[in-house]
Amino acid sequence: MAGIRLDAFTGRYAQRTAGMTASEIRALFAVASRPEVVSLAGGMPYTTALPLDAVGSLMSDLIARNGPAALQYGSGQGDPVLRELICDVMALEGVIGSPDDVTVTVGSQQALDLITRIFIDPGDVILAEAPSYVGALGTFASYQADVVHVPMDAEGLVPEALREAIAQVQASGRTAKFLYTIPNFHNPAGTSLSDPRRDEVLQICVEAGLLVIEDNPYGLLGFEGPPTPAIRARGGENHVIYLGSFSKTFAPGLRVGWVLAPHAVREKLVLASEASVLCPPALNQMIVSEYLTTQDWQGQVAVFQKLYQERRDAMLNALTSMMPSGTTWTHPTGGFYVWTTLPAGLDAKVMQPRAITARVAYVPGIGFYADGQGQRELRLSYCFPEPARIEEGVRRLAGVVEAELELLQTFGPSFSERITGATTPSPGLA
Amino acid sequence: MAGIRLDAFTGRYAQRTAGMTASEIRALFAVASRPEVVSLAGGMPYTTALPLDAVGSLMSDLIARNGPAALQYGSGQGDPVLRELICDVMALEGVIGSPDDVTVTVGSQQALDLITRIFIDPGDVILAEAPSYVGALGTFASYQADVVHVPMDAEGLVPEALREAIAQVQASGRTAKFLYTIPNFHNPAGTSLSDPRRDEVLQICVEAGLLVIEDNPYGLLGFEGPPTPAIRARGGENHVIYLGSFSKTFAPGLRVGWVLAPHAVREKLVLASEASVLCPPALNQMIVSEYLTTQDWQGQVAVFQKLYQERRDAMLNALTSMMPSGTTWTHPTGGFYVWTTLPAGLDAKVMQPRAITARVAYVPGIGFYADGQGQRELRLSYCFPEPARIEEGVRRLAGVVEAELELLQTFGPSFSERITGATTPSPGLA
Repeated sequence: MAGIRLDAFTGRYAQRTAGMTASEIRALFAVASRPEVVSLAGGMPYTTALPLDAVGSLMSDLIARNGPAALQYGSGQGDPVLRELICDVMALEGVIGSPDDVTVTVGSQQALDLITRIFIDPGDVILAEAPSYVGALGTFASYQADVVHVPMDAEGLVPEALREAIAQVQASGRTAKFLYTIPNFHNPAGTSLSDPRRDEVLQICVEAGLLVIEDNPYGLLGFEGPPTPAIRARGGENHVIYLGSFSKTFAPGLRVGWVLAPHAVREKLVLASEASVLCPPALNQMIVSEYLTTQDWQGQVAVFQKLYQERRDAMLNALTSMMPSGTTWTHPTGGFYVWTTLPAGLDAKVMQPRAITARVAYVPGIGFYADGQGQRELRLSYCFPEPARIEEGVRRLAGVVEAELELLQTFGPSFSERITGATTPSPGLA
Repeated sequence: MAGIRLDAFTGRYAQRTAGMTASEIRALFAVASRPEVVSLAGGMPYTTALPLDAVGSLMSDLIARNGPAALQYGSGQGDPVLRELICDVMALEGVIGSPDDVTVTVGSQQALDLITRIFIDPGDVILAEAPSYVGALGTFASYQADVVHVPMDAEGLVPEALREAIAQVQASGRTAKFLYTIPNFHNPAGTSLSDPRRDEVLQICVEAGLLVIEDNPYGLLGFEGPPTPAIRARGGENHVIYLGSFSKTFAPGLRVGWVLAPHAVREKLVLASEASVLCPPALNQMIVSEYLTTQDWQGQVAVFQKLYQERRDAMLNALTSMMPSGTTWTHPTGGFYVWTTLPAGLDAKVMQPRAITARVAYVPGIGFYADGQGQRELRLSYCFPEPARIEEGVRRLAGVVEAELELLQTFGPSFSERITGATTPSPGLA
């Protein structure tokens, strides 16, 4: 029985712990990080492009000037200097908020955790796009929320589908607490919520008494003109909880995100954060403040935009020239991700080991749904590999898809049915 | 009605949110941080004593050598290099663990949160010392745990009282999930669990099927000889979850703590941490690893020991020479805190505004109990102010206590009864 460890604590865990399972992405990391594999799986920003000399210098300057405070406990709500600066950052997307209503968090993942903690009782419903961010789904599951997915199309969340989903939840006697949405350069879908739909989605939620959780880590990483004003910027002060992050505009290794919430909610968020981590790291907050005030951070964001745009182009061009017909994908105008739907009869999860053998990694789609959808779908990331590697990765992937199609044609659809149990394409972005 | 804000979200929060209330300590911070006030309230390590030049240099060196990784996402469990080093640190207190069973957390507060999250259903019982760490009580309340306090004496937790508490919980039909204990230089009690009692407490918990949560942030900050081996070091591998922190040996502004847990529990902790913060900050972990490997960190701990010992001496000497008779206090042999019990008839919470007026701050005792005990008690910290300030603070405090006693003698015990509703001294350390 070597290697098998029984869990002596089974039966002693909380009920919520049963909902904690390893994500599709996590299981992939070990294989995807082998050097011979082209990873189109991870969502890692290209931190190599940062002005590293300047970042190192500002850290040592900060310690020389203000070391005892940077290394000390801070406030649970977060450093007031940084909260002021965060308001300036949010204003770039039309969001006007008070520093007093901002809570600094350990990445926006912690903001998701705190929001779920203060609003969700077991069995409460959260509405979310189909597909949705895998990290949010994990958090929602850990609080025993019931996620109801709302379809998207090329313009993002479909308002009519949102109305229907709300009506169905109400008809079933359950309580929907909020809509969770990523309006810009969606992870994983790669689409953005169109300008007119932002107003419509807000209005639908206000009428239904639903909060909107607007998660916006990628908003400043658009490739085509200025940002579309946020949902929060459209009269949503009392109805929207807005999440931001420095993980994509600066560096994820700092784990500095934030949440802007109506004042009463902000008070609960701070209490929940104190119970969770006492306070976010003072050092990291002061590093971000130094970076925002001493560096041309918007110039650096422009560097990232250009870099990711080149990679996006490399990926879309490679997909267009190499993927077998019947494969479709989204056309992101910013962010990190292209959402791909395989030809009918294929299954991205079943295909995954063969892709790894062909030295290319992606994330199968089912991890981005709480309800088992997404078997034909997969997420491709273009943020980290250089363009030539992206092209090589798509070449390898196209070869795997072709081989799968040949198998399917040889053995018939019953071949993949037997493996996957699915013949109908999943809804959503197919 | 200016200044009054109603909470439009009442009725929409989760049930657990009702248990989230601001701590006594938090409410104090604003007044206690005024420069004219001698604060004996906070538990801030004296970060000014750190080798700041070296810390600044190692940060810029780290970014120059390994910036893209330090600024990138990391693993949910924490950096393997740091987890190896943490095992070396734990060995100093007799704890032998595998890096694979270590999870790095955002301070040990996050470890408390994750443990509570995976084990506690609403209504489950947690046994804890009387008094106990206010931050742990806040976390336990936020998961709707029911805390049952176990009395301490000068040798720490009283084993016979632990047996009785376990029996009472069982008799009441409730489920106790774990004992939460701070065996070294207790916050707030200032006492340590004696060597023989450590074995006894472990044995009692093993027999009762209770996990021991051993929270040990201060273990290396003893003033009298080598550390007493941890509870985890006494055959507790499968029964103890051990929490450590770099907040007191290095710097709290980094928020780097850890938890060593039986393997099956560790797997759940990592999943819970990913749902909570995705991963702890890579930068902070690498800074700690650099500090441990390039600096004489144990020499620095010796510097802290000496510094805190001088301050402990200053506080105990001042208390002995100045406090009115009838006041008692503990005699810490390490750590940051002296737990003080006022003469019968006084109430530390009622006295607090008068102490602030006299420009001295402390933390009233009731915040360190989940059940309203501790009215005569208060926590004094000697970690942050310099010795002369400590002496001045105790002088002011003694004056306030004397004035309270005069009021009591003038108006009789009914005076304080009317205010506090309490005439019997609280149990525990009185």
